[in-house]
Amino acid sequence: MGKSFKQKTEVGSKGLILYGRHAVMAALANPKRQVAKILCVKENVDEIRKVTKIAPQVVEKKEIDKLFSSDAVHQGFALFCNRLPDYTLDDILDMADEKEKCHILILDQVTDPQNIGAIIRSAVAFNTLALIMQDKNSPIENGAMAKASAGMIEHLPIARVTNLSRAIEKLKSAGFWTVGMDGYAKTTIDKLQKPLKTAIIMGSEGKGMRRLVEENCDISVKLPMSPLTESLNVATAAAIALYEFNK
Amino acid sequence: MGKSFKQKTEVGSKGLILYGRHAVMAALANPKRQVAKILCVKENVDEIRKVTKIAPQVVEKKEIDKLFSSDAVHQGFALFCNRLPDYTLDDILDMADEKEKCHILILDQVTDPQNIGAIIRSAVAFNTLALIMQDKNSPIENGAMAKASAGMIEHLPIARVTNLSRAIEKLKSAGFWTVGMDGYAKTTIDKLQKPLKTAIIMGSEGKGMRRLVEENCDISVKLPMSPLTESLNVATAAAIALYEFNK
Repeated sequence: MGKSFKQKTEVGSKGLILYGRHAVMAALANPKRQVAKILCVKENVDEIRKVTKIAPQVVEKKEIDKLFSSDAVHQGFALFCNRLPDYTLDDILDMADEKEKCHILILDQVTDPQNIGAIIRSAVAFNTLALIMQDKNSPIENGAMAKASAGMIEHLPIARVTNLSRAIEKLKSAGFWTVGMDGYAKTTIDKLQKPLKTAIIMGSEGKGMRRLVEENCDISVKLPMSPLTESLNVATAAAIALYEFNK
Repeated sequence: MGKSFKQKTEVGSKGLILYGRHAVMAALANPKRQVAKILCVKENVDEIRKVTKIAPQVVEKKEIDKLFSSDAVHQGFALFCNRLPDYTLDDILDMADEKEKCHILILDQVTDPQNIGAIIRSAVAFNTLALIMQDKNSPIENGAMAKASAGMIEHLPIARVTNLSRAIEKLKSAGFWTVGMDGYAKTTIDKLQKPLKTAIIMGSEGKGMRRLVEENCDISVKLPMSPLTESLNVATAAAIALYEFNK
């Protein structure tokens, strides 16, 4: 058994191993996923059979433990599959063309996969059209990200672009209003008259947006917060911003 | 060195070890904390000296590593001190008496210290008057909770009560409107006319509020969400609710 794991853990540069009930079940229901192998504990077999005809390999929990670091809560589910294909900025602009009202989220220099996963979960909850990140400095899809998204990564178009400032320019030309989240802004987000099409831009927790990106924003807004608090976790701040633009 | 650690890790049943820059620095600035010992790496000495006259013990990073589980990001700060004293429900009602408008958060069966810490951070950010939890089934203050709160636990009055339903009754008698967060509610939170004094009640991520608690609410509300998403993380949902009641 050990040997076959080692061989098959290699799912190629386009592959990854998803884990956790929600992440695996949502991926199995997504036709964009090509399944290489499903591993699960005995108790999870029936649940998996309900969503796919591919027979899972039933293994002991400890065999799944071996695939991941010790803090990965896999719940007896592991799925070897392809990474989701990226969208292009043009794909997203085409999707936006068909909407009268929509919002997009842009992350500048947010690097923690767990935070990005949590943000993806909120983005889907609040009907965000797409997520745009910079190619460099943002992690590619991985198991921790998919797990933190509670499987919602299957539902969110994600584009990775080379130059974020240029992407913002392009969004502006396509009629998007660009709103930067900045703790030092004068306007609070709840007071902002919401435009029909918005790109919300968030920087990293510590450093915020890079200056070039910030200068490209039509307006900066902050969350109304107590002076006792320097900042919120980036995933929490993103959730509130997306909630506001979904109202 | 090893021996003195073992002796002094025992800070009594009322003590704990805080870790992480924000958690430790905020605790050192709080007169309610009695400091037993500060450990830090060389690089952090100056920062600590700015806020306290108590001399830190300068140690190697690996000595601090030994105090915690491997996933604790201590950043070279460890503080042995007392737990913060709990508030009583009457204390909180007295504080509320002096306010014309305020909101309180009640957590029912939320057990994960990290989630509670994240919720505390949002609660302070959004001017929440106090947090009420049930004595049983909710963790006491610990290092992970303080860390996740980014030190904001120093600023939030917390009461642990024996009977949550009775506490809710008492809040109602004191003029609080009780609002339960429930994914199946008909009203969305943004449409709710905000009362002057509100107690917001949230259940655990999986199970929600217990029935007895829910029946005690004046009204139930939900977050407006995409049908693709079953639920949000409890800390994310709490952040949005507190943001709404702070506006």
